[in-house]
Amino acid sequence: MRLAMVGLGLIGGSLGLGLRRRGFRVLGIARKRETCDRAIAQGVVDQASQDPRLLGEADVVFICTPIAAIVPTAQSILPFLQPNTVLTDVGSVKASVVSSIQPLWPHFIGGHPMAGKAESSLDCAEASLFQDAPYVLTPTPATSEQAVSIVAELVQFLGAKLYVCDPLAHDRAVALISHLPVMISASLISTCSQTPESEIRQLSQNLASSGFRDTSRVGGGNPELGVMMAQYNQAALLEGLYRYQSQLQQVIGLIEDQDWAKLGQFLENSRGDRSRFVS
Amino acid sequence: MRLAMVGLGLIGGSLGLGLRRRGFRVLGIARKRETCDRAIAQGVVDQASQDPRLLGEADVVFICTPIAAIVPTAQSILPFLQPNTVLTDVGSVKASVVSSIQPLWPHFIGGHPMAGKAESSLDCAEASLFQDAPYVLTPTPATSEQAVSIVAELVQFLGAKLYVCDPLAHDRAVALISHLPVMISASLISTCSQTPESEIRQLSQNLASSGFRDTSRVGGGNPELGVMMAQYNQAALLEGLYRYQSQLQQVIGLIEDQDWAKLGQFLENSRGDRSRFVS
Repeated sequence: MRLAMVGLGLIGGSLGLGLRRRGFRVLGIARKRETCDRAIAQGVVDQASQDPRLLGEADVVFICTPIAAIVPTAQSILPFLQPNTVLTDVGSVKASVVSSIQPLWPHFIGGHPMAGKAESSLDCAEASLFQDAPYVLTPTPATSEQAVSIVAELVQFLGAKLYVCDPLAHDRAVALISHLPVMISASLISTCSQTPESEIRQLSQNLASSGFRDTSRVGGGNPELGVMMAQYNQAALLEGLYRYQSQLQQVIGLIEDQDWAKLGQFLENSRGDRSRFVS
Repeated sequence: MRLAMVGLGLIGGSLGLGLRRRGFRVLGIARKRETCDRAIAQGVVDQASQDPRLLGEADVVFICTPIAAIVPTAQSILPFLQPNTVLTDVGSVKASVVSSIQPLWPHFIGGHPMAGKAESSLDCAEASLFQDAPYVLTPTPATSEQAVSIVAELVQFLGAKLYVCDPLAHDRAVALISHLPVMISASLISTCSQTPESEIRQLSQNLASSGFRDTSRVGGGNPELGVMMAQYNQAALLEGLYRYQSQLQQVIGLIEDQDWAKLGQFLENSRGDRSRFVS
């Protein structure tokens, strides 16, 4: 089976390395000649080109571009694929991508390998990036059986943990555990840094330690990624934010009412509930 | 100079170890005979007793009990101190403690060594717990010069970073960088775990990774500590929570309005601002 990566950054590069190691022949498409050369030199792909006609040789094509480019990329490469070629993508939001590409290609299945690094370049690619990481596939009733089974098999080859759900369920889950944390964490940073009294602001900066560090980490991340989450997953993120606002209002109410018993119960429940999300 | 620790848990024990290492004679008071014996055996103190009369030999006394016991402990030991003995505490909230003890003892100065561990027992005590950690002292105009200079000197001996401010400034700063994160982090856990649809809830649990882990860490901590923060620092915490609510509402407004440029600017600012709090 011949595979192809369209877009050779961290994700495309890591998929290439990981799947070549399992014996697959991997082709690569990039916009720049220099990226193609580097990918070949680094052993990420067997062959690379700027010319999409190379995709005519692929049995499975992964679109590994930034999310805004996924649908236009799919539209531009479809004319070059063999009719049975399986197409998938790696975007972190699924409903909008799937609803745009599915009608154009029955062998398309949305995917989301949930691994990354602070740096997103090809130079940071690693064969084991997806080892033990969740990899979500989002078929719809219109997705061909063949697309599901072939991509699921490749996911297993990567050592990732396969989850299968519909695109909207994926988007609502990642809104809660990935996109919501970014917004509440950035709001913490902003609240602290916009403290009106300069003495308190300065003192806060001096005294901040591990609690602030951890809670603010994702809010201090890549701004473009944060905007992308909000833009492509607006409805699910807003739904999470509204429920969060109402939860926070309840906590404020307990503190205003000095209901320490109920606040203690709430924090006790949070401690217990957390263990179901992280081990 | 002879020092005494009243309360021999993680903080009292670590202060004892750290200051004995610098050559001070350290006395200890604990409620249980067994704790006294263990503290001596572990080299935390030179001498320990359940009898507060031992404090008559101390030049500086540290109250190292949980916050609710600080004021009652001060009241019960004051009759046993020499008139010039310097008294300090290690509570994580200062205004209420200082306003209660200050009128009773001119050589009292509030203190807050900002270091800890998940486990708070004597067995976890370490001499270097306060090395490079912030240690805040909170004198008022009524505090004797002697109390400030003696405790400040001991803080330097511990290798901690000394900050001096008034008790209310301390409480407002820690409300922002320590107590506010607990409430917003616990509210995240609760929002995710109370997702009404069981499929989305289960999927969120499966897909949660480092972003959720870090943002939820302090919200999954010791519930008694969380309640204590709210109880003893209610006004400052509520002030932080109200400003946080309003900041979050602004973010929600940007997402509702699809104002991606302003959302990007907000996240860009958050990234930059964070670096002033954590290195």
